Amino acid sequence: MIIVLKDADKKTIELISKEIEAKGLTPHVSKGKERTIIGAIGDERLLDIEHLKSLPGVEKVVPILAPYKLASREFHPEDTVIKVNGVEVGGEQLAIIAGPCTVESEEQLIEIAHAVKEAGASILRGSAFKPRTSPYSFQGIGEEGLKILRKAKQETGLSIETEVMDTRQVEMVTKYVDILRIGARNMQNFDLLKEVGKVNKPVLLKNGIASTMKEFLMAAEYIMSEGNKQVILCNRGVRSYESELRFPILSGLTSLLKQKTHLPVIVDPSHSTGNRSLIIPVSRAAIAEGADGLIVEVHSCPEKALCDGAQQLTPQEFAKMMAEIKRVAAAIGRKV
Amino acid sequence: MIIVLKDADKKTIELISKEIEAKGLTPHVSKGKERTIIGAIGDERLLDIEHLKSLPGVEKVVPILAPYKLASREFHPEDTVIKVNGVEVGGEQLAIIAGPCTVESEEQLIEIAHAVKEAGASILRGSAFKPRTSPYSFQGIGEEGLKILRKAKQETGLSIETEVMDTRQVEMVTKYVDILRIGARNMQNFDLLKEVGKVNKPVLLKNGIASTMKEFLMAAEYIMSEGNKQVILCNRGVRSYESELRFPILSGLTSLLKQKTHLPVIVDPSHSTGNRSLIIPVSRAAIAEGADGLIVEVHSCPEKALCDGAQQLTPQEFAKMMAEIKRVAAAIGRKV
Amino acid sequence: MIIVLKDADKKTIELISKEIEAKGLTPHVSKGKERTIIGAIGDERLLDIEHLKSLPGVEKVVPILAPYKLASREFHPEDTVIKVNGVEVGGEQLAIIAGPCTVESEEQLIEIAHAVKEAGASILRGSAFKPRTSPYSFQGIGEEGLKILRKAKQETGLSIETEVMDTRQVEMVTKYVDILRIGARNMQNFDLLKEVGKVNKPVLLKNGIASTMKEFLMAAEYIMSEGNKQVILCNRGVRSYESELRFPILSGLTSLLKQKTHLPVIVDPSHSTGNRSLIIPVSRAAIAEGADGLIVEVHSCPEKALCDGAQQLTPQEFAKMMAEIKRVAAAIGRKV
Amino acid sequence: MIIVLKDADKKTIELISKEIEAKGLTPHVSKGKERTIIGAIGDERLLDIEHLKSLPGVEKVVPILAPYKLASREFHPEDTVIKVNGVEVGGEQLAIIAGPCTVESEEQLIEIAHAVKEAGASILRGSAFKPRTSPYSFQGIGEEGLKILRKAKQETGLSIETEVMDTRQVEMVTKYVDILRIGARNMQNFDLLKEVGKVNKPVLLKNGIASTMKEFLMAAEYIMSEGNKQVILCNRGVRSYESELRFPILSGLTSLLKQKTHLPVIVDPSHSTGNRSLIIPVSRAAIAEGADGLIVEVHSCPEKALCDGAQQLTPQEFAKMMAEIKRVAAAIGRKV
Repeated sequence: MIIVLKDADKKTIELISKEIEAKGLTPHVSKGKERTIIGAIGDERLLDIEHLKSLPGVEKVVPILAPYKLASREFHPEDTVIKVNGVEVGGEQLAIIAGPCTVESEEQLIEIAHAVKEAGASILRGSAFKPRTSPYSFQGIGEEGLKILRKAKQETGLSIETEVMDTRQVEMVTKYVDILRIGARNMQNFDLLKEVGKVNKPVLLKNGIASTMKEFLMAAEYIMSEGNKQVILCNRGVRSYESELRFPILSGLTSLLKQKTHLPVIVDPSHSTGNRSLIIPVSRAAIAEGADGLIVEVHSCPEKALCDGAQQLTPQEFAKMMAEIKRVAAAIGRKV
Repeated sequence: MIIVLKDADKKTIELISKEIEAKGLTPHVSKGKERTIIGAIGDERLLDIEHLKSLPGVEKVVPILAPYKLASREFHPEDTVIKVNGVEVGGEQLAIIAGPCTVESEEQLIEIAHAVKEAGASILRGSAFKPRTSPYSFQGIGEEGLKILRKAKQETGLSIETEVMDTRQVEMVTKYVDILRIGARNMQNFDLLKEVGKVNKPVLLKNGIASTMKEFLMAAEYIMSEGNKQVILCNRGVRSYESELRFPILSGLTSLLKQKTHLPVIVDPSHSTGNRSLIIPVSRAAIAEGADGLIVEVHSCPEKALCDGAQQLTPQEFAKMMAEIKRVAAAIGRKV
Repeated sequence: MIIVLKDADKKTIELISKEIEAKGLTPHVSKGKERTIIGAIGDERLLDIEHLKSLPGVEKVVPILAPYKLASREFHPEDTVIKVNGVEVGGEQLAIIAGPCTVESEEQLIEIAHAVKEAGASILRGSAFKPRTSPYSFQGIGEEGLKILRKAKQETGLSIETEVMDTRQVEMVTKYVDILRIGARNMQNFDLLKEVGKVNKPVLLKNGIASTMKEFLMAAEYIMSEGNKQVILCNRGVRSYESELRFPILSGLTSLLKQKTHLPVIVDPSHSTGNRSLIIPVSRAAIAEGADGLIVEVHSCPEKALCDGAQQLTPQEFAKMMAEIKRVAAAIGRKV
Repeated sequence: MIIVLKDADKKTIELISKEIEAKGLTPHVSKGKERTIIGAIGDERLLDIEHLKSLPGVEKVVPILAPYKLASREFHPEDTVIKVNGVEVGGEQLAIIAGPCTVESEEQLIEIAHAVKEAGASILRGSAFKPRTSPYSFQGIGEEGLKILRKAKQETGLSIETEVMDTRQVEMVTKYVDILRIGARNMQNFDLLKEVGKVNKPVLLKNGIASTMKEFLMAAEYIMSEGNKQVILCNRGVRSYESELRFPILSGLTSLLKQKTHLPVIVDPSHSTGNRSLIIPVSRAAIAEGADGLIVEVHSCPEKALCDGAQQLTPQEFAKMMAEIKRVAAAIGRKV
């Protein structure tokens, strides 16, 4: 960590140097005409950056090392490959998670489950508990939805994934599904992160819509620090001022995440674009850039005209997407 | 609500018109050369915007009315004034909430409580549960902190306010304090919003760092729709690309909130700026614009040099701030 | 265009209706309980949105049609393919523009020109006039650089492209090069846009770092409205709060641009990422999503260790990039 | 400047140290287990940060000093007070610049000029050249408008201010007006900045809608480095994702600018809010925070109902604004 001082007298420099030494690090002082710089050499995660900033004479504190450890590639250089039943997430093969936004009924889910399986998906998604911006919107069917998911698993052999929103749901949800999802709005719901950190099942963690990469990895660190190392990061895009796109994926972020962390990184083109016509091109881009998989919303419906959500692909469109990303994956040496 | 159609045939127009009628609204169709517009006249909150967007031929859906109701000024034209013990929030008198970031010890809290009371604060803040970006940072002292807050209240007569982070804490926290705070990271923790919506105590709700005004008011609506109408909005700023400011308050947002909602709106200059030298000017600006109060971090400490956080005012600085905002408040016809 | 009125009396509605009729459009009035909606059917580009917003009783004005015309795909459904000497931009074949950030010397440029040509580039880039954030930074070598570009063209047969920053340079720059570049900072330098709009050479227009898609297309419209229809759009990314990425490309924007406009769209991975390790993955993503080409910075240097800019690829790295995007292009049915 | 190295061998450290010494600075090397830090002590403006970033082994380069000099308060500690005829900008008295968006006619401008003078404005604004997002919108009346401005000055004694958009206009505009305005879109039109830097009249420089504070001050530095030290900064707000506000002023930025630079800082509430109902509260906030003045759009019109732009105050509203900010100014020890 680097501490930049302005108009610092000898006493202040000594004081700060002692604080650094007390934590087991070594201070290196460089005095310039306009500023004095103290480099704190050692494990800087032991220093409290907010405290240092508040000391007299301190103008700026610049961290040098990443604040996360368990999630960092420096600490764990090899890729983490997470196994969900027979399926690997983070390996050569891409993990495709697909299914409806919400579990509506047994008939609906099982029909979609068969369809996405046939097109090549290996994990079935579906929300039983739904975070909605409005309290007046449909909030999901709850435990009944979890039972339907389990049934779909039995029928198709697909692994199943669903969202958990509240610490009080973690135990129940864990009983039913293979992967627990933490949604964007809960990326810094720290009590929830700790709770899923105690579970022995993989967690799919979405970034918050305005979180930085560091905050995202710190959220993963929360889960990992409780013992659960099976974290799948999901890049679902961020808020921008471009009103024609919903939550655009930042191109380059998936690659950068893969440099900084050993955890698998998948992309969510459905919630990112919110626009059926963009899901396939954004999926191709995600795979070409290096994502380890996708989580995609797929919905089938007898009265097709009336029920396709703007961000849900039909099974036919999903099959087309799978065919296209298969070719892109092959072009970069991966498999679907 | 306005539905814009492109290349829409008669059948589609009829289909959508029937959907609108089924919800009790009246469709008005305007056919142009390039687009057809259907205006849905009536209570548009009954329509599902996502569903409409997904219908064939629909290019755009534009809501006309606000999605929130209980929180809206149209529904409730008079200002809501919330009473916390003897203190009013949202009336002519400004509500000043002050205290340390975190409850550290009885001695610390009571000393600060006396200091902020003397300078004119009416409510004492202090976190017992602390959301921290890093799992390795200090997370607060928990229930012990709530007991200390209660003691400070007994000693000083100040009302007390603290953060609640987890649905499982709501019952306990409610027993101890006068105002429950929902932090920025939990603005869309919907289960938590519902839980504090069942409580009979005021809730101070901070906006998320990238939330829109509508999302902020919808979060208030969540609380209110469960029965608790005592919501104090706290404008704490948003993430921007200006790295020299932490979470700047958007000038104009407080005024706009006051136009759209009857709920009181206060400002948090401490978390917004994260910079002691900006807290007083930003506080003056907030009051001049029309905020109903402030929530400010104040910390005192025997070894002053070493313990003032970068965003916490000393009692002396807080007293200076109070003197300055008193003059600004008077200039716009309000009192501190 | 849709005009939403609140508390509008009959007189106001008539007044606005007459204004709409005066411009040759037809007003359709829908009266609701809370709001009145007037749909203006016809060529809404004739209406002044700011004026309408300012009328009494008007709460909101919502445009329905795009504000650009010449640039829109509705006006010109087929893809525009721009021919630069023998090279096509916007066709099946991808256009690869490569070269150094700045023209430094004849030796430097010609060496790089040969290298990028060999690896498959068809157009050579190089700035003679350089916009720099600091007045104290190197500002380019001016006309001398244009002469060197022309020499490189003669030696290699590559077409050449360079930036024009000032209306007074347009005539001179046009004499030397095949494509004029308008940089991000000048996307709304309207006098410059008009001036290059009078030139009979293609213009490569970069988006501003915080421009919306609409503003970007309106800047193209400025050029086209002066007569020059040969505009190549360059998606170079936008400012975000993710400090680990420089100006990230928003995934989906290239596809959306291709839906809205007939103009070719290329991507600039160098200025977007500012980070050598991200240029190749971001390029692959751009091609997979559907970009018509790339503009990439390439630099060679005898003392390699000391001269590679963080965002410039070496010729070896560029050749690797070309090999990778060739495979991705093939996967989506295009050629490099 | 601090250079952070990863896996750096002795040779690299020596190489970088020599580069630093060659520029007259002193390198201080601190070797840690995971990183090596080189502090470059001296005038770091002489170092090329982009070059340093590109050197092998360099992970990060952190500037310590501000990149601007002439504009910095460190270089020039006292407030700069700019005199425009008899009026001071940057002194105890606030400078109020008011007038119509655009000069439309002699009658219009002179009527408004008298009105704003009476209410207490000291400088008259009015655009003769207008940057418009659409090429089809009214672009101003050109030199004719400048003549009308001069006439208004003769009639009222007000100083006059107008926008200059193109290097080719600078000479002409300078002849007519007292203050040259550089609009947000041209903040990084470097040739234009250089051109107004050669003029002996004050320049009002608006920040770009997505510029950082550093970029804003570097734009001022461009003007100053050409010799013109009379720069008035205008904080006109930035783009945010809050669609209910146009270009919100970031609360705290005016104060921070006043800490970093000696130049006067005024605020533009009209373009920032674009909403008449917010202009007065945002103006009060600007003054309370510490702005040195305002630039406000005022328009009068016989057929009032039809001509008030959404962001232009009527003379009556302007008079009300002046009365309110007078009280706020007094509360913080300043005068209007």
